[in-house]
Formats: sequence, structure tokens, C-alpha cells
Amino acid sequence: MKKVVVIGGGTGTSMVLSSLKALKEIDLSAIVSVADSGGSTGRLRDEFGFQPVGDLRQALAALASQEIKNQKSKIKNRQGENSWIQDLLLYRFSKGNGLEGHNLGNLILTALQDMTGSTAKAIEMASKIFRLHGHIYPITTKPVNLVIEYSDGTVEIGEHILDDTNKHAGDRIIGIKTSPRAEIYSQAKLAITNAGVIIIGPGDLYGSIMPNLVIGGAPEIIRSSKAKLVFIMNLMTRYTQTHNMSANDHLGIIEKQISRKVDTVIMNNGKIPPKILKAYKEQHEYPVIDNLKKVIGKRIIRVNLIRSTLVKQNLADAVHRSYLRHDPEKLKQILNKII
Amino acid sequence: MKKVVVIGGGTGTSMVLSSLKALKEIDLSAIVSVADSGGSTGRLRDEFGFQPVGDLRQALAALASQEIKNQKSKIKNRQGENSWIQDLLLYRFSKGNGLEGHNLGNLILTALQDMTGSTAKAIEMASKIFRLHGHIYPITTKPVNLVIEYSDGTVEIGEHILDDTNKHAGDRIIGIKTSPRAEIYSQAKLAITNAGVIIIGPGDLYGSIMPNLVIGGAPEIIRSSKAKLVFIMNLMTRYTQTHNMSANDHLGIIEKQISRKVDTVIMNNGKIPPKILKAYKEQHEYPVIDNLKKVIGKRIIRVNLIRSTLVKQNLADAVHRSYLRHDPEKLKQILNKII
Repeated sequence: MKKVVVIGGGTGTSMVLSSLKALKEIDLSAIVSVADSGGSTGRLRDEFGFQPVGDLRQALAALASQEIKNQKSKIKNRQGENSWIQDLLLYRFSKGNGLEGHNLGNLILTALQDMTGSTAKAIEMASKIFRLHGHIYPITTKPVNLVIEYSDGTVEIGEHILDDTNKHAGDRIIGIKTSPRAEIYSQAKLAITNAGVIIIGPGDLYGSIMPNLVIGGAPEIIRSSKAKLVFIMNLMTRYTQTHNMSANDHLGIIEKQISRKVDTVIMNNGKIPPKILKAYKEQHEYPVIDNLKKVIGKRIIRVNLIRSTLVKQNLADAVHRSYLRHDPEKLKQILNKII
Repeated sequence: MKKVVVIGGGTGTSMVLSSLKALKEIDLSAIVSVADSGGSTGRLRDEFGFQPVGDLRQALAALASQEIKNQKSKIKNRQGENSWIQDLLLYRFSKGNGLEGHNLGNLILTALQDMTGSTAKAIEMASKIFRLHGHIYPITTKPVNLVIEYSDGTVEIGEHILDDTNKHAGDRIIGIKTSPRAEIYSQAKLAITNAGVIIIGPGDLYGSIMPNLVIGGAPEIIRSSKAKLVFIMNLMTRYTQTHNMSANDHLGIIEKQISRKVDTVIMNNGKIPPKILKAYKEQHEYPVIDNLKKVIGKRIIRVNLIRSTLVKQNLADAVHRSYLRHDPEKLKQILNKII
């Protein structure tokens, strides 16, 4: 059984996990960031003092069983290919004093953290309830915050800054680290050591990917792993994180951090519909420019990863910045070939 | 497979369900009240407008699988014989703005109600997630409030009044009904029709049991059922509901409501430790006096149902009014004989 490890957090990693869980003969592990500080997760973090659960919840939803089906029930607000159990974990309360904005999955994980006194054990229990196809490990067992340094010397603390278009949007980030320093969780380390394939991305470079790679011991263990290292390039830049950055820029930051070359890069070459481009442009966000041809000694897979059903949606949906996603079916096919 | 239906709500019904689910060859259904208006349930009801879920959540926890175990994890605050999945469903947030006081199980059911638009479907889905040993049906699919009438003619609305020691404590209730009128849920009706045994109680007479029996169609269907009808008598009176009421008084109210005699009454004859009695007395609550001997043509089973581990606990625990419970193991043995 091929051991595949996905490193990241957020919707990009969720999508990769969803694509992979459909493949047979794979032992799948997700290693996710625990540095969130915004939204529902941030509120819970502030109020309870546990590790933030946002990225864990998304991975949990992605890997939850799809076998628990209910044909008789008509679910409102279904999101694409999600099963209803995934919808439940991602459910967000739209009213209720103090409840509004909270994800149910976050609340379940918070209750389990409180009951067990440990994020790792909370995830282990949630894995049993929701019959996970795979394993989920936090990158570290310590609650950490991100420290972000910009090219002008400004330092900010908190992952939520990376989503805030009113602060430092367009500014160049020169590095992130965690406060306090933290070591990689032993189970995450073991999963990377034993992996046959490691997949990084897509996802927010500084909000989801790098928060894993700056944890103590993570670069070394990835560097010494015999696994094939795959990087899935983002489709678009983010104004608050990767403004003006090319494909080579993205790759360079990761390779520098882990002091190792990536074996395979998956890069979209599909055309993004003009209406979508226009909506993103209004938010100062653009397709990641493919300048990878200059890189030697690396397998670059260029493929159309754009979801074809996209243009059928209305523009109001498209304006939402996370609307444009890699096509899970196309991604599944390409990952199946690589693995 | 013997079909057993338990009618009620609250901790009494939960305990009966926990006892019964360990018995083999039983097809178990719980029919529970949906008239709560206090606490976490009441807040959710006010804010979301769905049927109250408190009694459903307790039945869900009682019937959830105990097979999902986690020996490695040490759970804090374990409650007696509950499994950790039951602890999770009963988990109550002890902090968090707006979250404090909410039960996680209530939040899960509320999310499912919102997703499906139906309490019955929400319970059906929760049943699949938590691998239920049995079925749970709300007595009605309509959101209702209790209307309570006292002997001096006072009328109050809301189930929470029945828990309020500052209002009408010690006053005699002469009747309850729902506002608006509601009909019995078809699946609950079917379960009663097909039952071999129906068990009512223990539990709050006016807060848990009668809210089922005053639903339109419920008395008729229980009356016409060929099932053996069992009533488990409460251990103690409640100052806000059954002050000064004897065993015969409890039984009379139920039999009058359904216009049918109960076949078997289970009555405690075990001695309640003096320290416990004293703590209850301070709250004007006393053992239900057994005056059933005067009743003819009914099988009365008198048995020691007091939990023997009780006296080992400290008095601080004992003061909590719901502390004194029927012993699940003793109850299981007696129910096994009857069924």
C-alpha cells in the first residue's frame, strides 16, 4: 500500500485529500497547520486556549466517509461534490448569539480537545466517529502564532493578517516563523519518514503551506525522506500573500525552506474564463505566471486543471475569491498517474 | 425480535434506554417529548425556530454506539458508565461568549435541522453517524409549547416553568396541554402500534412524560395497542411538579390520560441513604410513597432500584437533585425479566 502524505491546510489541501481518498491502495495522511488566528477558529482559540482547529476541521471533512448516505433527505445548500456528512462538518451557524459564524466541525473538535486535553487525541477520536479514510496529524502539538516579516522590516503577528486586504496587501513577505518555536509532532514525523509520496499545495503559501515547513524538524525530515516530492502550483496569486509572484518564485521559497528540490511540479495550463479573471483582477489577484521552463532537472506536468462547470455559474459566485478551484476529477487523474 | 417502545424524555428515559440497549433480540424505539423551553435547548429554539432538541439529544446519547472506544485516551469528567461518544454528545461548553451552557449534541442536531429542514430527518442522520442501537422519534413534528394549569386557575406557558423553584413550587398542577394542538408523528404512531412492550417513565411527570401523552392521537394509539404497558415509578417527588403526590397519584394521572390501565408497575422498595434524603428534603423533595397495594388487577413489582455506589459519593454531589437515580444494572435485570 503506497503511503501518501499531504502537507498543508485550507481548501487546497482538502481538495487534494478528497481527490486522493477515492484512489484505492493508498494509505493517506494529512499533516496540517495549527496556526490559524482568524474567524470561528480564532474566537475558539482565544476563548478556550486550545490549538486552533480550522485546518484540521477542513481535512476531517475531506477525509470523512462518503458511505453514510441518505437518499431520502434533501439537503439544502449542498456544496458541489460534498457528501452530507462533509456538509455537516463544514456547517456554519448563520444565527444565534455567539454561535453565528462558528463551524460545527470546529465546535466538535473543541469539545474533544477539552475532553481529552490534546489536539492529537481529539483528532483521533473524530477520525473514529466520522470513519476517516486516512489519518490527520497536526504539524505540532504546541499552540503557535505566525510571525510575518515584510520587506520593509514590518513585523506582524497572527495568521489572520494574511487574509486582511486592509493591511499590507501587495507588500512582499520575506519570511514567516512561529511564536513560540515548536517542534514537529512525532506522528507527523513518522508519516513523512515512511511516505512514498509527499504532496505540498495548492494553498495559501504563507497561510497554509509555510506554517508547516517552518516548524522545527520539518525541513530536515522532508529533506531526508526518500519520498517523491510533488508540488501543486496555485492557480492565482493572492494580494495579501503572493502578489506579483511567479511559479518560480513560489517554488523557490519552498525549496529554499526545505533545502531540497521538488521532484514534480503540477502546473495548470488551462484557460481561466475572462469573467472570472475580471472578478479576480478587481481584487488585485492574477493567474500565477508559468516561468518554470527555465528550471532544469525537474519533471513539470502542465495540464488543464480548471473546472469546466465554472462558466455555467453566475458571476456573483465567481466574485468570491475562493471560487476558482482545481478540478478534483482532473487532479485525481493526474495524481493517480504520478502515484 | 421483540419490539420495545420507551416513551418519555430526560435522564429517566435515557437511563431506561441505556439499560435496554444492552439486551439482545430487542428492536428498541424511543419516543420523546419536543416541548422543552429552557436552557441551551430553549436558547436554540428561540434563535433558530426549530423544534427543541434537548430530549432528543439525551436519547441519542443513550442509544449511541459504545463500540467506538478509545483505550489510549484518558477522558476527563467521565460520567459513570457513559462511553466517550456519549460524553461527547452530552458535552456542555463551560466558556465561550454565547457558547457557554450549550450542549454539543444540541448544536449537532440544530445544524442537521437547518440542513434538512426537519427534526425527524435530523435525527435519522444523527442515528447513522452515531450508529444508534434503535430508533428515536419525536412525538410530534410540530414545535409546541406546554400550557400548564394550576389548581387555583393560574395558567403558565413554557416547559421551563416546571423547573423554576421560584414559581408555583408546591402548587398542584391540574392539567397540561400543548400550544398549538399537535398530532402524533406517523413514525411514532407506527412504533407504538407494532410494539410488544411500551415503557413509560421514570421521569418528570409533567415535564417529560405527559408532554407525550397529551399529543393528539397518542392516548388512542396507546389504548388500542396490544403491547404490555409498563410504568416505572419515580424515586422522588419534585417540588415544582409532583409535590405531595403518592405512587397512586402518579399512576392515576397517566391512566386517566390514556384511558387505559397500566399492566405492570415497577416500584422501588430500596432504602434511600439518610444523607441523600436530607439533601432532597432541603429542596422539599421526598420519596414517592408506595400506596399501590390498594390497587387491584395490576402486577406490581417491588424491587430495590437504588444505586449501591451512591453512598460512597460525597454530599456535594448528592445535593444535586438529579443525582439520585435508578440503578441501570438492577433496572436492566428487572426489565429483562418483564420483556
